[in-house]
Amino acid sequence: MNWTRPKPDYSPANPLFLCVLSTTDTAKIHGISAAGKSPEMTEYTPAGDAELVMLGAPQCISEPPTNPNGSPTPAVITRASIQLTGIPCIFVNGGLRVRPVIPLLDLDAKPANDIREDRAVRDPRSLFERSAMLGMELGKIFDFVMIGESVPGGTTTALGVLRALGYDGRVSSSFSENPSSIKERVVEEAMKRKRVGIGDLKSDPLRAVEFFGDSMMPITAGLVRGLSGVNSGVDVVLAGGTQMMAVLALIKHLKIKGAVSIATTKFVSEDVTANFSEIVSELGYQSYISDPGFGKARFRGLQRYETGDVKEGVGAGGAMLLANICGVEQARFRDQVDEICIKLF
Amino acid sequence: MNWTRPKPDYSPANPLFLCVLSTTDTAKIHGISAAGKSPEMTEYTPAGDAELVMLGAPQCISEPPTNPNGSPTPAVITRASIQLTGIPCIFVNGGLRVRPVIPLLDLDAKPANDIREDRAVRDPRSLFERSAMLGMELGKIFDFVMIGESVPGGTTTALGVLRALGYDGRVSSSFSENPSSIKERVVEEAMKRKRVGIGDLKSDPLRAVEFFGDSMMPITAGLVRGLSGVNSGVDVVLAGGTQMMAVLALIKHLKIKGAVSIATTKFVSEDVTANFSEIVSELGYQSYISDPGFGKARFRGLQRYETGDVKEGVGAGGAMLLANICGVEQARFRDQVDEICIKLF
Repeated sequence: MNWTRPKPDYSPANPLFLCVLSTTDTAKIHGISAAGKSPEMTEYTPAGDAELVMLGAPQCISEPPTNPNGSPTPAVITRASIQLTGIPCIFVNGGLRVRPVIPLLDLDAKPANDIREDRAVRDPRSLFERSAMLGMELGKIFDFVMIGESVPGGTTTALGVLRALGYDGRVSSSFSENPSSIKERVVEEAMKRKRVGIGDLKSDPLRAVEFFGDSMMPITAGLVRGLSGVNSGVDVVLAGGTQMMAVLALIKHLKIKGAVSIATTKFVSEDVTANFSEIVSELGYQSYISDPGFGKARFRGLQRYETGDVKEGVGAGGAMLLANICGVEQARFRDQVDEICIKLF
Repeated sequence: MNWTRPKPDYSPANPLFLCVLSTTDTAKIHGISAAGKSPEMTEYTPAGDAELVMLGAPQCISEPPTNPNGSPTPAVITRASIQLTGIPCIFVNGGLRVRPVIPLLDLDAKPANDIREDRAVRDPRSLFERSAMLGMELGKIFDFVMIGESVPGGTTTALGVLRALGYDGRVSSSFSENPSSIKERVVEEAMKRKRVGIGDLKSDPLRAVEFFGDSMMPITAGLVRGLSGVNSGVDVVLAGGTQMMAVLALIKHLKIKGAVSIATTKFVSEDVTANFSEIVSELGYQSYISDPGFGKARFRGLQRYETGDVKEGVGAGGAMLLANICGVEQARFRDQVDEICIKLF
């Protein structure tokens, strides 16, 4: 029955699924992001993802977000979980260029700049504080909050922040062939320009975000701070791969205490170009790995997930953990994702 | 012990306080609104109110919102309630010109035009539908939702919508001397321009909002629809005076079913220039009237509430009902409001 390892021992009374949507101009660097058919289309991906989860189909674009091979966005997984569990789901505007036609939580975040510019994120401390305020309100009622993300280009900002904090993190990719060398080169260029070496900002983590990050990062860290401050009983699960791994590092360096863990897919944990499990262990947090068994999927684009085409996003790994916690079997879950895809494509 | 009449019989397990912040250019008509020291300052009032409730003091303006006599905004009452009850409180951006530095729920609402222009509210149906979507998500977890408002100029838009729906509603005012004749003249001019007579839009209530309303109205009605659709167990209380009375009329004409009532202050219900209780009875909803006993307040600006200086806003009447439901005594409550004012002014 457990298709998440290790066996999760959560039994929330009042759970909530949040997902932070954000954009960074880093995604427009050619070859960096596959979250969209072309670099320009990546601006529509977070909005399209959110609309797909809430409404069953994107509204701001005519076709659902796919990678360049046509594999469907992991938003289909998140939608299946929200449908099957009935858990409330709210998206957060973490600095969008394209707004989805759904309700959003708004923290006055701006799109992030290319990390090779002077500043990637303007005033991350204010963003962190507004987000902590939101976390405090949510912590008055929810006892379990999962936080996903949709940020095209976000593995490159994750790499930048990990390096500035002193971690030899290797990040995953929405491409089946990870363009690691391009990401490394972009991060190197950004670090050189700002004269920051590996680990130089380990005591100034919000500066690492300002220089190399994206707005999703201080928002997620702020939520964790607020949720952990009000009521120590709030369990928080970061739902994501190497991008959320970078947020975990940020949380650790900000010295935020709380019941925090991370959940992702087996596609991320088995990605040999990344080192998710190693870094999460080094940081000292619990990780959960979900496996939807897409080898048996009817829809071909889902089968391609098994060969590394699309790996994570929109909190997909965590959304599967939620479904598992709520007693949904793997086969039932996969059927639901198949049905969503067949209806969509 | 009961300082709200009739005795409320709510005992919520998971309550939420929402407050919709909105602006309309109708507020800039000279002499219409006292929600701010001058017509121009009314744009800062919703943001300043929200910051005062959440942070204890406004941030976007140097002084707390007051009426021209210097009586404090009713936000001080709402803050006291949120502090004493510990109930989660979230503000909704219902079309602001000035954004408070706090988290907001965002429905992509725009500031409303002067009702004498072609359209007061652009596309109220989309706004209503996005808001219903939010209500559905919130209805998955909360069993009691109170909805307040801060909309300078909002009694004039309320008057316009009531007339278009066929009600002889007389609306209250943030002035001690109600500028009823100015409001009547503005509404008459707007109705004449759009060739709408009294009751002409009773079967097309969202058109009444489009012509004569503000964005808070379809947002609040949409929330009620969403909250009532998902789970018939959600109790909704509209927290406001004659503005929320107009929303009740809207809800009735939209044929929204649900457990809805309205709560206001005795300052509104005793306002002889308005007819709150009469119209709410005619509409067929339960109303609750709260009395903070400000005759015994230490702070002089609060004492002036007793003579009609400031009457309602930011959900103050409902916020007192919430405190009452949570077992807070009238004297304890008044002390808290006094302390907030003494610290602020």
